[in-house]
Amino acid sequence: MSWSEFGKRFARRTGARELMDDLGDALASDRDICMLGGGNPAHIPEIEAVFQAEIERILANEGEYRRMFANYPSPQGEERFRTSLANLFNREYGWDVTAKNIALTSGSQAGFFILFNLLAGRQPDGSFRKILLPVTPEYIGYQDLGLTEGMLTALKPTIEELEDHQFKYRLDVSNLEIGPDIGAVCISRPTNPTGNVLTDNEMEQLLSAARGAGVPLIVDNAYGMPFPQILFTDVKPVWNPDLIMCMSMSKLGLPGIRTGVIVAEESIIDAVGSVNSVLSLAVPSVGAVLLNDLVASGRILEISEKIIRPFYVAKKDKALAHIHDEFEGIDYRVHKPEGALFLWLWFPGLPISSEELYRRLRQRDVLVLSGHNFFPGLDVEWQHRDECIRMTYSQDDSQVQRGIAAIAEEVRRAWQEAR
Amino acid sequence: MSWSEFGKRFARRTGARELMDDLGDALASDRDICMLGGGNPAHIPEIEAVFQAEIERILANEGEYRRMFANYPSPQGEERFRTSLANLFNREYGWDVTAKNIALTSGSQAGFFILFNLLAGRQPDGSFRKILLPVTPEYIGYQDLGLTEGMLTALKPTIEELEDHQFKYRLDVSNLEIGPDIGAVCISRPTNPTGNVLTDNEMEQLLSAARGAGVPLIVDNAYGMPFPQILFTDVKPVWNPDLIMCMSMSKLGLPGIRTGVIVAEESIIDAVGSVNSVLSLAVPSVGAVLLNDLVASGRILEISEKIIRPFYVAKKDKALAHIHDEFEGIDYRVHKPEGALFLWLWFPGLPISSEELYRRLRQRDVLVLSGHNFFPGLDVEWQHRDECIRMTYSQDDSQVQRGIAAIAEEVRRAWQEAR
Repeated sequence: MSWSEFGKRFARRTGARELMDDLGDALASDRDICMLGGGNPAHIPEIEAVFQAEIERILANEGEYRRMFANYPSPQGEERFRTSLANLFNREYGWDVTAKNIALTSGSQAGFFILFNLLAGRQPDGSFRKILLPVTPEYIGYQDLGLTEGMLTALKPTIEELEDHQFKYRLDVSNLEIGPDIGAVCISRPTNPTGNVLTDNEMEQLLSAARGAGVPLIVDNAYGMPFPQILFTDVKPVWNPDLIMCMSMSKLGLPGIRTGVIVAEESIIDAVGSVNSVLSLAVPSVGAVLLNDLVASGRILEISEKIIRPFYVAKKDKALAHIHDEFEGIDYRVHKPEGALFLWLWFPGLPISSEELYRRLRQRDVLVLSGHNFFPGLDVEWQHRDECIRMTYSQDDSQVQRGIAAIAEEVRRAWQEAR
Repeated sequence: MSWSEFGKRFARRTGARELMDDLGDALASDRDICMLGGGNPAHIPEIEAVFQAEIERILANEGEYRRMFANYPSPQGEERFRTSLANLFNREYGWDVTAKNIALTSGSQAGFFILFNLLAGRQPDGSFRKILLPVTPEYIGYQDLGLTEGMLTALKPTIEELEDHQFKYRLDVSNLEIGPDIGAVCISRPTNPTGNVLTDNEMEQLLSAARGAGVPLIVDNAYGMPFPQILFTDVKPVWNPDLIMCMSMSKLGLPGIRTGVIVAEESIIDAVGSVNSVLSLAVPSVGAVLLNDLVASGRILEISEKIIRPFYVAKKDKALAHIHDEFEGIDYRVHKPEGALFLWLWFPGLPISSEELYRRLRQRDVLVLSGHNFFPGLDVEWQHRDECIRMTYSQDDSQVQRGIAAIAEEVRRAWQEAR
């Protein structure tokens, strides 16, 4: 088959494709694979019970059933839910938004595809604009979203060393300059893959720089407030017309329904609706109807705060403790885990590349992700890139424990080979 | 906000966007709007009961619940369902396909976005290829799918006049020439908007021409076999590696779950999976899990044949009878309704444009679609284009009846004004 330019670019094996293939293979396999690679949220029985009860209620009501399954919603997504969500933001955080500030997308990734390509790429005047990722490592899924190559540019952070084998990436303000070739700035907060939560001060610096350049700041809030609150520091959600806030229903435990949320000023939401209608006619209503009452009543905040967050805090603490046990004697650092469902491990001076470490672990049926995938758009030399891996701690404790032991063994072996 | 080239192209008001806005407004409105514009499938209580029972079963089973809601599927979509569907095709129609020949997409429209842009548009060698629509009128949703302008080209059909105010569009073989500037041929069968079902002979002519040019023939089978069977003629589904067959779950009564199906040779399916993973990480699993047992058991054929098809046959017959009653004395034709859920009305010599007729009906809270939207890529002059409207007959009988009466009144008024 002869592919178009689009085909050559998008039909190739991308990082996101490898990740999803790994995930799919592991889930389909009969082997006992230790799946620390993907971002599948945990199965939390109390949360599943809440959703099951909601679906039961919807099934028992003809109008609700039809709203969920049997009707096309409007291009920006199911309107009642968008109104409920706007009300929640206004009530809880004092924002001033309406349904016209909110669009749903076919998953959060689809939202980034739309936003990146609306705001960057080839411009009508012949120039070219990029998306700036001011703090790498950043989310692997951003890598291939551009319809044209070279749509991302990124900055190297500074590294703040902390106690207890921890560290934190910090915005390097000395490098932060937003020229006319930038169409938007984008950060994930909490950051996938590192669990970093940029400080309020860093956020203000970014927003002020973006404002100065007349471009929006996109905040990927897939793990944050008001749901699912896989966030271990105190953060008050802010929004203003210069911000584009993106959220996801996936990390509540609902990745199968594919629903992302974008909160932005009206002209952006209107544009997203238009792209939705061309690209997919409409976006799924399942999540919007499933979550509507939980959002309208504010109960979503309660289950996020009282069930989801403590669940992940406990998982994170357990995984960290295993790491400190198993890695005894290895030179290692863990990024301070402030949110999201990953630990980001750094092995300074590791004698093999993180990609080789990934392969060796895969041989042992332990799936992690090599850190080198998480520097999209960064075109400076940096050894650090090949010294890190991302591991998920959302899976069964025994799996996580086995995975951590295997990582420790392989890192030790790599050092022994090098001696 | 300053948009990129992509933004300028996709953020504008497209035909599909207007359609979806109309639909969304009408559903959200308190007014008694006669919604004959959109393609929302009917609410068939017996079918809804089948789906409700399936969902109840899934909710009661932890593994099934998680498969539906809580896990990411692989990039081509939920694998078990793809296997069940392949088995159905092989068992019922003697095809020779596996799960590797099947990809799911976030709705059928998303599948066409991917296929059109994979197969046409700017080529790596600098040339440009188009999608050929060999029989217009064709589906409005194809219009704006190209990442670059001018991606569609279309042929004018011949018109076969039939008895009883009916007619049928026919492939004009004398015009059928597939040059090197064509990347694929595409037809909807049954056709949206006309309800046309291209004959087996026409299909063979198209396939042979496409083969001769070394390009695939895309068949949009959203209304056809094996489900939902909104198809009133005898058609045996065929597939071979030169065909790309596209299906939808929407017209079963499930537009809210956004699931399309593509059956094609493996390299195409693999490419679709790659695009899925970049554009949306994964596609929804809700439909794939909901329909799995119905497909695996073959029961989907039974409910399509015994419930869905007869339902639409009765609706179509009723609507046709109303038309013949109400249009008495008007010069009108109806395209022979062989499938899909629309009637395509032609008013030869109509003194106002179909767009003006649409506006006048809209003033009366009767929504139809103007026919001029349904000739994407056709760049010849043809008065016929402005003489047709599409109306849906899937809604409540009283609505359909009121709509038909209003159409008749407005057409009569247009003729009176012209005298």
